[in-house]
Amino acid sequence: MDKKEFALNQHEKWNGKIEVISRAKIETPEDLAVAYTPGVAEPCLKIAKDVDLSYKYTRRGNLVAVVTDGTAVLGLGDIGPEAGMPVMEGKCALFKEFGDVDAFPLCIRSKDVDEIVNTVALLAGSFGGINLEDISAPRCFEIERKLKERCDIPVFHDDQHGTAVVTAAALLNALKFTGRKIEDIKVVMSGAGAAGSAIIKLLIELGLKNVIMCDRKGAIYEGREGLNEEKAKMAAITNREKQAGSLADVLKGADVFIGVSAPGTVTEEMVKTMAKDPILFPMANPVPEIMPDLAMKAGAAVVGTGRSDFPNQINNVLAFPGIFRGALDVRAKDINDPMNAAAAHAIANLIDESELRADYIIPDPFDPRVKEAVSAAVAKVARETGAARI
Amino acid sequence: MDKKEFALNQHEKWNGKIEVISRAKIETPEDLAVAYTPGVAEPCLKIAKDVDLSYKYTRRGNLVAVVTDGTAVLGLGDIGPEAGMPVMEGKCALFKEFGDVDAFPLCIRSKDVDEIVNTVALLAGSFGGINLEDISAPRCFEIERKLKERCDIPVFHDDQHGTAVVTAAALLNALKFTGRKIEDIKVVMSGAGAAGSAIIKLLIELGLKNVIMCDRKGAIYEGREGLNEEKAKMAAITNREKQAGSLADVLKGADVFIGVSAPGTVTEEMVKTMAKDPILFPMANPVPEIMPDLAMKAGAAVVGTGRSDFPNQINNVLAFPGIFRGALDVRAKDINDPMNAAAAHAIANLIDESELRADYIIPDPFDPRVKEAVSAAVAKVARETGAARI
Repeated sequence: MDKKEFALNQHEKWNGKIEVISRAKIETPEDLAVAYTPGVAEPCLKIAKDVDLSYKYTRRGNLVAVVTDGTAVLGLGDIGPEAGMPVMEGKCALFKEFGDVDAFPLCIRSKDVDEIVNTVALLAGSFGGINLEDISAPRCFEIERKLKERCDIPVFHDDQHGTAVVTAAALLNALKFTGRKIEDIKVVMSGAGAAGSAIIKLLIELGLKNVIMCDRKGAIYEGREGLNEEKAKMAAITNREKQAGSLADVLKGADVFIGVSAPGTVTEEMVKTMAKDPILFPMANPVPEIMPDLAMKAGAAVVGTGRSDFPNQINNVLAFPGIFRGALDVRAKDINDPMNAAAAHAIANLIDESELRADYIIPDPFDPRVKEAVSAAVAKVARETGAARI
Repeated sequence: MDKKEFALNQHEKWNGKIEVISRAKIETPEDLAVAYTPGVAEPCLKIAKDVDLSYKYTRRGNLVAVVTDGTAVLGLGDIGPEAGMPVMEGKCALFKEFGDVDAFPLCIRSKDVDEIVNTVALLAGSFGGINLEDISAPRCFEIERKLKERCDIPVFHDDQHGTAVVTAAALLNALKFTGRKIEDIKVVMSGAGAAGSAIIKLLIELGLKNVIMCDRKGAIYEGREGLNEEKAKMAAITNREKQAGSLADVLKGADVFIGVSAPGTVTEEMVKTMAKDPILFPMANPVPEIMPDLAMKAGAAVVGTGRSDFPNQINNVLAFPGIFRGALDVRAKDINDPMNAAAAHAIANLIDESELRADYIIPDPFDPRVKEAVSAAVAKVARETGAARI
């Protein structure tokens, strides 16, 4: 049986990767009278007087909605809400296994921004957080922004911020390993979607000054014709010298390449034009912008990809379970930029400088220290920035 | 510690009566590659081609949304969506414990019918069924009707239909016990809310001819001034002699009293005016329309209430877990009247005629035979009526 067939059979066997169970034993009339009527009236009345008590008497404080409209599922594109469900259930399973967070998938039958926002906002009282997933750009930006305005609980688009946190963690360690400072380097990003923008914004938050973002037409610069709203925003905070040209052009002399674009975008020749000991994170999935062995042969000092079968896997599961664990632990009303930055540092710092190797700049997803380190760092910064409510 | 305090402490200890767990073990990179990317792409692609496969590859086919707006929670009234959550979680716990149905609570921050309908309808692709709960009348009727039109999965308002099924089951056995036929009896209903209407409709489906519904102003009859839409509808199918008068007036000579109204509505004197060996189901909670001992003293042959501390508890938990179990088992697109009638017969028939006693006309909620009997009967009738999809 090949791997695809095995995965399909396994999904049929699971018949759902999540399950809702009862935490209350209900075996006698007495049990029933406590868990249900008349006993249940007491917590209801308490919450009616003080809504915050919903965190004490219900599951809300450990519960995250994993929300999609099925428009950008994996690399599969717009496959619809029902077809997106296996990914959302998988995400929920990861939340539980890696963060002890209860997560529940909500796949919405609409592509209308306001309809999606309204649906989620009306349910915000049932959850402690919202994880947006696999929603196509640029709608995902508007949905996230509007939901953050309307909801009093954290709203986090993992494809943006989770990816950004783990990429930043990998970069922080790759810089340490190659003896660079983030303030001094030049980064070139290939891909101007949700992940690309979020990665650049977080790296700027961490001190990056010199970064150029490229789309299929080449370097994005202020004033380039035909930029959409999001790209125009990015043009205003990147490429301050307004360099034009192809990816190959702007990659010359760069210290770091980050790819969230398409296979084969980068050649060995292009790597050879980069600064000495370049760092490459070609993260296109499943086929990276350049294969790691080719990049290393062309002189790369460190290569990280999205794949588990190569070293340095830049995997979101290092971030989102711990980030939400930390946010829920302090009943955060938001997951802000400093909290994401703290998560990146926490992941990076799990590897001591002396342990860093070209093929070990980022912890393994199954490293048991990750959840605790990330959640503690996120909770601490939530308190420091006023995002925490307890 | 008194009972209320104990219930409150227990809810704090539970910190949520439900939990979302992972059915997928994720302990190695290989596990991750099956449950998440890249393996998860296979079921996604299959479902994208045939949405019905969501029942095979995701949890949908065992998953029911328990939906409220918090406007009519228990006897507590409009306490809001967050405060309704302990009841919804309790309901979900009962679904799991009594029906092996995964149920998830969605408490909606809106009282607008169309907004509620839209929110639920947009999520219908994530669930195999919708259980409406504790939504105030008459909005609950419109919400149920509109959702049934828009959704391709069963929509069931338990406060109406669950209550009706169990009341009907109790009545069927009380009639056997007292040697009556449903076609020949006169029933008087006190209470013209959601439960009252649904009970009468189901009893008519089961053969009842003579029934009068009363609200606070007395008997409801065709042409009475100021009837709202729902009451006008009920007036058209009940009280065909258009009797006017108080509850006490119309109760004279009645075989059966059913109360879903308020404590103290019925006196011993009123019971004495009923037919010989009257049957009384005073189900107001927590204090019934007349206390069972008083009703028995006044000549009642059978008394059933909503309370667990009296005999013949008319408890919805006898119905909804098995009804949804049966509906999900055959992937029903609807829960129709014949399916509800079948559930009532199935519950009633669990007690052999020879076993019937004045204090044993309805099975105990913990009777382990209930789920199987109800689900089998419901699935069978779903197939016979074309509601089943498999």
